[in-house]
Amino acid sequence: MIRLNCDYLEGCHPSILEKLTETNLVQTPGYGTDDYCKEAADAIRSAFSCPDSAVHFLVGGTQANMTVISSILRPYEGVLCADTGHINVHETGAIESTGHKCLALPNKDGRITASQVTVAAATQADDEHMVKPGMVYISMSTEVGTVYNLSQLKDLYLTCKQLGLYLFIDGARLGYALAAPTGDLKAADIARYCDVFTVGGTKMGALFGEAVVINNPELNVRFRYMIKQKGGMLAKGRLLGIQFSALMENGLYFQLGKRAVDQAMRIRKALMEKGFALHVDSPTNQLFPVFSDEQWEKIEDLGFKLEFNGRLDEEHVVLRVCTSWCTPDEYVDQFIAALKEL
Amino acid sequence: MIRLNCDYLEGCHPSILEKLTETNLVQTPGYGTDDYCKEAADAIRSAFSCPDSAVHFLVGGTQANMTVISSILRPYEGVLCADTGHINVHETGAIESTGHKCLALPNKDGRITASQVTVAAATQADDEHMVKPGMVYISMSTEVGTVYNLSQLKDLYLTCKQLGLYLFIDGARLGYALAAPTGDLKAADIARYCDVFTVGGTKMGALFGEAVVINNPELNVRFRYMIKQKGGMLAKGRLLGIQFSALMENGLYFQLGKRAVDQAMRIRKALMEKGFALHVDSPTNQLFPVFSDEQWEKIEDLGFKLEFNGRLDEEHVVLRVCTSWCTPDEYVDQFIAALKEL
Amino acid sequence: MIRLNCDYLEGCHPSILEKLTETNLVQTPGYGTDDYCKEAADAIRSAFSCPDSAVHFLVGGTQANMTVISSILRPYEGVLCADTGHINVHETGAIESTGHKCLALPNKDGRITASQVTVAAATQADDEHMVKPGMVYISMSTEVGTVYNLSQLKDLYLTCKQLGLYLFIDGARLGYALAAPTGDLKAADIARYCDVFTVGGTKMGALFGEAVVINNPELNVRFRYMIKQKGGMLAKGRLLGIQFSALMENGLYFQLGKRAVDQAMRIRKALMEKGFALHVDSPTNQLFPVFSDEQWEKIEDLGFKLEFNGRLDEEHVVLRVCTSWCTPDEYVDQFIAALKEL
Amino acid sequence: MIRLNCDYLEGCHPSILEKLTETNLVQTPGYGTDDYCKEAADAIRSAFSCPDSAVHFLVGGTQANMTVISSILRPYEGVLCADTGHINVHETGAIESTGHKCLALPNKDGRITASQVTVAAATQADDEHMVKPGMVYISMSTEVGTVYNLSQLKDLYLTCKQLGLYLFIDGARLGYALAAPTGDLKAADIARYCDVFTVGGTKMGALFGEAVVINNPELNVRFRYMIKQKGGMLAKGRLLGIQFSALMENGLYFQLGKRAVDQAMRIRKALMEKGFALHVDSPTNQLFPVFSDEQWEKIEDLGFKLEFNGRLDEEHVVLRVCTSWCTPDEYVDQFIAALKEL
Repeated sequence: MIRLNCDYLEGCHPSILEKLTETNLVQTPGYGTDDYCKEAADAIRSAFSCPDSAVHFLVGGTQANMTVISSILRPYEGVLCADTGHINVHETGAIESTGHKCLALPNKDGRITASQVTVAAATQADDEHMVKPGMVYISMSTEVGTVYNLSQLKDLYLTCKQLGLYLFIDGARLGYALAAPTGDLKAADIARYCDVFTVGGTKMGALFGEAVVINNPELNVRFRYMIKQKGGMLAKGRLLGIQFSALMENGLYFQLGKRAVDQAMRIRKALMEKGFALHVDSPTNQLFPVFSDEQWEKIEDLGFKLEFNGRLDEEHVVLRVCTSWCTPDEYVDQFIAALKEL
Repeated sequence: MIRLNCDYLEGCHPSILEKLTETNLVQTPGYGTDDYCKEAADAIRSAFSCPDSAVHFLVGGTQANMTVISSILRPYEGVLCADTGHINVHETGAIESTGHKCLALPNKDGRITASQVTVAAATQADDEHMVKPGMVYISMSTEVGTVYNLSQLKDLYLTCKQLGLYLFIDGARLGYALAAPTGDLKAADIARYCDVFTVGGTKMGALFGEAVVINNPELNVRFRYMIKQKGGMLAKGRLLGIQFSALMENGLYFQLGKRAVDQAMRIRKALMEKGFALHVDSPTNQLFPVFSDEQWEKIEDLGFKLEFNGRLDEEHVVLRVCTSWCTPDEYVDQFIAALKEL
Repeated sequence: MIRLNCDYLEGCHPSILEKLTETNLVQTPGYGTDDYCKEAADAIRSAFSCPDSAVHFLVGGTQANMTVISSILRPYEGVLCADTGHINVHETGAIESTGHKCLALPNKDGRITASQVTVAAATQADDEHMVKPGMVYISMSTEVGTVYNLSQLKDLYLTCKQLGLYLFIDGARLGYALAAPTGDLKAADIARYCDVFTVGGTKMGALFGEAVVINNPELNVRFRYMIKQKGGMLAKGRLLGIQFSALMENGLYFQLGKRAVDQAMRIRKALMEKGFALHVDSPTNQLFPVFSDEQWEKIEDLGFKLEFNGRLDEEHVVLRVCTSWCTPDEYVDQFIAALKEL
Repeated sequence: MIRLNCDYLEGCHPSILEKLTETNLVQTPGYGTDDYCKEAADAIRSAFSCPDSAVHFLVGGTQANMTVISSILRPYEGVLCADTGHINVHETGAIESTGHKCLALPNKDGRITASQVTVAAATQADDEHMVKPGMVYISMSTEVGTVYNLSQLKDLYLTCKQLGLYLFIDGARLGYALAAPTGDLKAADIARYCDVFTVGGTKMGALFGEAVVINNPELNVRFRYMIKQKGGMLAKGRLLGIQFSALMENGLYFQLGKRAVDQAMRIRKALMEKGFALHVDSPTNQLFPVFSDEQWEKIEDLGFKLEFNGRLDEEHVVLRVCTSWCTPDEYVDQFIAALKEL
């Protein structure tokens, strides 16, 4: 069985395990105050051209999202997000568990617009009976594999600044997003046009780890207290420093992203040639083709595991095809060959 | 200026002030453990034919909602409700502040259906990455003045029982709902077909007060701890007992509801005769006619204050006309006369 | 049975009921935006010589405490308080329910000192593994009837300012505290030497109500959102405005406090003459004499209800004797006579 | 510099890195549903003789504590614990951030007693104005290196059962506790005499990881929802399974514990021979000798880093000497030699 259903099925890029092994018996202080973390933070600041940003390392995405969001918002404030946003759908109410409402905005392709934010803020205005929008959360790439382009991101950020909102980019799949062939965002743009973003490691070749990059210094005040309180301060914080150092070395992070997206684009081409509809046309490592139930059964029989994303009608489903930092070429070749048989 | 924009513009029914004055210097224990509260609880149990239910008295509606809901739900559970529901829109995130997500369901007229509940529960199924629906919240009457009828309520309740969900009825305007001419629900039905409901006093002639009636005994365990913790335990709890005793005496509560609805129906008739569209056709004390901007200005010039409910298009608005337990006949007469001038 | 066990056994000062009756059918906007509230806020600002302070009206003490404290603190901060403090002992964890730790300081007589605050803040220093003190809560009078004098309060406030902490005074019994014969604090001092204080109505002759006075303007930003979210925004907010207007009129509030304390001091004198030990020597309306079990039984047989405060040893208890804004002279006379019989 | 100040200064036991490397490219489902986790859970059930217990794997200790405690308690309940307990002192209010009060009990050596629990529960009784004790938290070993013996643990557990409380053992250093030469608890006793316990990995040779073992099945209901919501569900959950499998293999976990404690006991003997006072006499891997400032400076000059635990008086401090799963014999030898020079 070849699994093309997920981008965190394996362990990590070999360079990480090597580095962990090399450094294993070095003694370091705990909680991310070690030199590996300092080095990794520098590498991230350099890679994203944000020399003055603060960098913190957390273990997981839900943890990072809840820590950042609950740190930013006042108790009566909520977070504007796509109704498909990870925080709104797939974190078991982690944001609400910290006391804050997800103010969900409808969307077609995982993205929300500056004008939606403007309208939402205006609707609430100064009505103390309603949750006040305090920030905007977007995912990059989105939960359906799409990306914001530069003008969309700038619009969102400038709108946020005008309205007194903070902008937070969940970059769980940031490396894939930056490799989108239709995208025009550079790493530096991410840092320039938001208050906080994460650089996802888990889905990008790390064992685990999300770097939280805080560009807006007022949001960094005692952020480490928040990390500790929300359960995200790793005792052996060095493990995160070591991993992100490895990922940032010689641009590995970005190369892994590009490789996975290139492979996804090969699959996308094959899907379109075969006449499959794409439920969302996404330019990153996640594709969402429409299969008939029969085709789905067939592809599974041929040995390929895809992810069920939703039922379209009585005879069709939307599947997710997902490449990753370590998908071998031959998996892609074989999958494309199999598609032709359908 | 005659205000027909709200049902809590005045103080209270005179019998309440009389009773407060009579009993003013009687010494009683605090926190609702006095005899007035016992008497009022008995009166409510009798009026709603629920001899075994527990009755608690709280000051306000948001307080009652947050106390009941946070008492019922496990931390990872949320509350299904209409997206127009008071808890979802107009309580400044009080429910989320207790850690729980409002799982909002779209609706046309303020009501949600048993099948929406079924679908929502099925969608979540046993996915531990999603908030689990733990209960259903409905308002009676709804925020747009509509009511559930007996079969709709039974369907909802039986569906909840099948799915392991609790049903909570927010009865902030219960007295008006029960007087709906198109409704078929009796007071006893309310108690029979839900786990918890409130009997609203504030909008029904009390100075303040919401009675929480718990039909399901497992939900009553240490509920008073919750009241205290959430700030809802009134030191001089007797004030609530005295008020609800007065309201329940000789069916006053239900008479006040009927009187207000009768007057609203007179206005409704006049609106329809004049050709006004009703944004929602509601059979209770709140009406939602569509006015042109010009008509709105005119009616204000004629001395009537209505509530702005929303803009329909560039030239039309939806207004709320609201009668109450104390709207005088002459206000209604004058308003109807004014409508004819538009 | 004459009850001297509590200061909220009765309704309210008659002038309040009169005012409520007079204004009953006046139509006002809701939620404390009416003219009665404006008038009452002005009266409080005038009585406490704080013309620039913001005044809000809430229903109860626990509600006021949790709303103020959760509004002030960042998520990782806690509130320093006496371990006997109301928030630490008798609010069913309301403060913790908003996410904040009560950092309890040991004390002998209900009061904490500036040096305790200094030490507590130094202990925590910048240790992100510990809750950071964010504010100090004191009660005036304290839970055992004592009061801070001017130099103690100034010390606390200046210490707070130096350490970057906010000072909040819970004035549930402020009127009694200001009447303490051994005290030297004036109303204006209260406002001058803290960031926020409450003026308690419930225990001082109102039906209910606590005025929150915010001296520090940065703490007033969107405070009304907090009131609404925590369930404390009364729909008919006028009820609070009317009550506090009545209490502030011609200094009634302070007169009621003085009257109750004068009566308590008469009782204190009688207790001491009879040789009773005072567990705490308090100069306000609450006294804490030590009775033998036999004496306790006897005084109850003589028709007096006192409050059990704690067991001292196998044969002695600490009782609470409590006068109030409405304790009649004859109750005090009779009680003193009864004491002599013990 | 030889560090004897902490037991999580290094990476992990080599067998863990080997196993991670071996399995690195195996594809597994996420979130702990993989076979490595199943295998590790079985190994733990076997090692602790609790075949019916549920086992979950979380990343860190604060995370495990807050997830377990907030899962067990009703909103108005608190957790009884030693005032020195980790949850009360060193988790930045993580427990309070989930809404629950730590009900701290004074203690002399990190341990609390069954009779303290009985008194605390009786004091609260059924007073709805106070936080209700819902569970008891103890650490094993405690924060000062002491251990409960069998009769103490049984007493606590039986007392909890009688009072309707749950007992939770924080086993962050469980492996060290079970190796205490003065202790009489076996692994199976831990599982037998509590409702939930953790088996700490981080301080016992894992890179990270705490196994939560739930003996009481009612506490296991939808516990995974809690893990996810609190940010503790690791995407590549296998990492935890792999590590705990390695630690449980051939009793490695217990051997590592014994080795560290044996070394600590050698140091303890040397300290006592040299005449050092022990602030607490602890039989596990943490020792708390009293040093003069001069001695402290000297030992640092000799190249040994110990942890400052507190100041005893103007000239003496309490230090923490800490061995771990990987402290080499020569470090201990050299330290003992250095002690002799003081």
